[in-house]
This record gives sequence, C-alpha cells and structure tokens, in this order.
Amino acid sequence: MQITSARSLDDGVLERDFVLGDVEGVLWTPAAASASAPAPLVLLGHPGGLAAMRGRLEGRARSSARLGFASAAIELPGKGTRSGLPVVDQARADLREALAAGALPGDDVIDRLILPLVDRAVPEWQALVDAALALPEVGGPVAVSGGVIAVGVRMAVVEPRVVAAGLFAGSYVPRTIIEEARRLRVPVHVLLQWDDEGNDRQRALDLFDAIGSQEKTLQANVGGHTGVPAHAGEDAARFFARHLRPGWGPRG
Amino acid sequence: MQITSARSLDDGVLERDFVLGDVEGVLWTPAAASASAPAPLVLLGHPGGLAAMRGRLEGRARSSARLGFASAAIELPGKGTRSGLPVVDQARADLREALAAGALPGDDVIDRLILPLVDRAVPEWQALVDAALALPEVGGPVAVSGGVIAVGVRMAVVEPRVVAAGLFAGSYVPRTIIEEARRLRVPVHVLLQWDDEGNDRQRALDLFDAIGSQEKTLQANVGGHTGVPAHAGEDAARFFARHLRPGWGPRG
Repeated sequence: MQITSARSLDDGVLERDFVLGDVEGVLWTPAAASASAPAPLVLLGHPGGLAAMRGRLEGRARSSARLGFASAAIELPGKGTRSGLPVVDQARADLREALAAGALPGDDVIDRLILPLVDRAVPEWQALVDAALALPEVGGPVAVSGGVIAVGVRMAVVEPRVVAAGLFAGSYVPRTIIEEARRLRVPVHVLLQWDDEGNDRQRALDLFDAIGSQEKTLQANVGGHTGVPAHAGEDAARFFARHLRPGWGPRG
Repeated sequence: MQITSARSLDDGVLERDFVLGDVEGVLWTPAAASASAPAPLVLLGHPGGLAAMRGRLEGRARSSARLGFASAAIELPGKGTRSGLPVVDQARADLREALAAGALPGDDVIDRLILPLVDRAVPEWQALVDAALALPEVGGPVAVSGGVIAVGVRMAVVEPRVVAAGLFAGSYVPRTIIEEARRLRVPVHVLLQWDDEGNDRQRALDLFDAIGSQEKTLQANVGGHTGVPAHAGEDAARFFARHLRPGWGPRG
C-alpha cells in the first residue's frame, strides 16, 4: 500500500489515498486509532467509479469512524481509470438491450455481468485487508459493507478475517452466488429497498433465504435504490457495532 | 374502565388489572407518568389467553415503560374466560384438519378463523383507547404492537389516534386484510420470523407489499415464531420511540 496523499478531515478522520499494486483506493482512520488501540476495519463496497463515489464513501467512512472503525475502498476491476473488462462491457450492453425491450436479463447475462467482477475483486479485497492490517493503527476484525452484493457474499464466504457482512440488495445476483451464500457463517444484515426498480426483489429474497448464517437479518424499506431511510442506516451501524466491537457501542 | 387490583412492580411500573365492559385487561404505566407528563400509549397485542400470556406481556410492558410509554392489553374475543366464538372454533378445527393432512388452509378457513376476531376486537381496542386516554397520566399518541396481525392492521387503518403500528407477521392474514392494508398511512414496522413454520411467509410479504404507508420497514430474522432476536426487539423499540415521542429516545 503506497500512500499518495493524506489529509485530516474536520472531524479528525485521517483520509489517505493509496495505490495497491495498480489499484487506487482510499483509507479512512478515526483520530483515536493508534498502535495501542487499533481500529477494526470496514471494507466499503460501491458500484465502481471511485472518483464519482468519493463524496458518498467519505460520508459512510465518517459514520464508520464515529463507531471507532477504519474504512477502506478500492476501485472495482474494469471501472474508473482501470482498463475495461470486455466480457462485462458486452454483458452490460446485452443487459441494456434486454431492459430496453422490456425483458428481464437472462441468467447468462447476469453471470457475464457479475461473475468476472467477483472473481477479480475478491482477491484484490483480500490484498487490501493484508495491506490495511499491516498498518499499526488498523486491526481486525473486518467487515464488508455494501457495494456489489455478489462481491460481498463471496468475500464473506472465502475470507476468514471477515466477521460480519452488511449487504445491500441493489445489484444483480448470479444463481451461483446464491448457492455460495449457503456457505456463509458470519452474521449478515441485508438492506433491501422494496421499490428499487433496477433490482430483482424475488432474487434478493432467494439470496436471503439461502444465506447459511445462524444470524441473518433482512431489513426492507419503502423507496428506490438511493432512498435508504436514515433509521435503516442507524440499524446497520448498530449491526456493525455489535459484531466488530462486542460490548461497545451505543446502547438502546 | 373499572380497576380491580393494582400493584407497583420493582421498577416502579404501576400494574393495574381492570375490566372494561365485561372484558378483562391490564394497564401498565411508568412511574414518571403524571397528569402534567402523560405517557403515550402502546396497545399490546397477543394471541389470546391473557392469563397464560401475562408474563410475556409484563416483560413487553416494562420495556415499553423504559421508553416512557404506558401499555395496555385486553383479552381477545372468544379467548381466556370469555365465551367462545363457534364460527372461529369450527374454523380452528378445520385448520387443524388441513394441517394434519399436510395441506395449507384455504382462504375460507382463514377468513372464518380471523375476520370474526378482527370485527369484534377492534371496537374493543377503540373502547380501550377511550378509557385509557381518560386517565390523566395517559395521553396520546397511541401505537399498536404485535398480536394478531390482522387486528393490528384494521386498528391502524380505522383508528385515527393510532400513529404507528408495530406488526408481527406470525398469524394468518385474510386476503381482505391485505386489501385493507393498502389504506394504511401511519409508519409501520413489520417483524417476520423467516423460519416460522406456522406462518405463510409469502402471505406476509404480500401484506408488507400492500401496506400503503410512506414509511414501512420489514425486518426478517432467522428463527421460528418465538425466536425473535434481542436486537430486533431493540430496533422495534426505536421505531416506537421515533414515532410516539419524536426527538426523544436513545440515540445511536
């Protein structure tokens, strides 16, 4: 992890841009994080396009820092300034064609759209965990939060340092990922926007049903993709507080 | 409302048994409730059989009192020591027969099982609101919490003093009640136990979908009917705090 720039935000959060291999990313650590009190780590997912997402990621990182957690995000494969993934680009064109024709995308389109992203992103997220935990002020445990839901599921299945997964049901889910979800064992909190036009609600419910974890919660709220109500964000924050810092956090 | 006995619990909650007409009930008020600071009212639903449910109701009432709310429960029509409802008893026998044969109960069985209860219980709950709000230490607004979900829906649709509904998707829902739910306008928080064998999960999702309120949340958790996790109870408590006492309540 090569830090390329750093700045202190008004709430004392330290924001650092970095490159990891050739992947750009941002790390946020709370002011109080130190070698003697390392912060748990939240991996912030997003739909890709780090520059455009930056403001919203910073907001999520600041909320996370108020709970005492460090946060990190890296660019997704094929997005932002990274070289494109032709198979994914073709799948996106096929998806648009299907939607324009008023059809639902077929499973082959969803697979080609999502699986190459999952296969590439998860090892990069694992390298991110390696690099972030090597910093003295960042410690475990690790959680995943939002972004492409299939990436979050795979990451929580394969990476033993992840102890909790906050998932956002707002992107396409390949059927193979639903099968992988049966192997999930960590606590999972799934947010679903009930009226998200771009989301297949039944597929999201099938995914939730498949999750093998002993603790799993689905929270569905009125509204579209970007309309998650404030109280849902607060409930998700309490989920992370329960699992990243047991015994700590706001009571009530 | 004729008080038949009263006692003070160890946390200062005043517990009073009463009869209203010929219906037995219990009222719990927090120690701090007074004419100058009347407590909002939560109507505690239950499956019927007040004597057997009493311990659990008392636990819910104490939690409610910690948020500053009074709570009240009355016996359901046909349950406990009240005279039976032959049409409901016949429907229950038909339900058991269907379940024993491995079948789902038909809509006519569900209608006969639930609708007579709704038609009788809701006017009684409204009379309970009248009587409780006549006490100087109890004020509005009013919320419904749990119990037979069809009763909660109807009550929240027809009773303008109800400003929030916490519903538990754990009993049969007639299709006509799903239609009534489209007229709901108050904030609704629905708890669903994902693995509740006695509950029709799809019917619960259909009900949630139909609810017409601008604010509605579905929270589904792993487990059977009685396995609601503690954090789900806490989220529901925050729902009531937001709507019965805006600006007050635990932060976080």
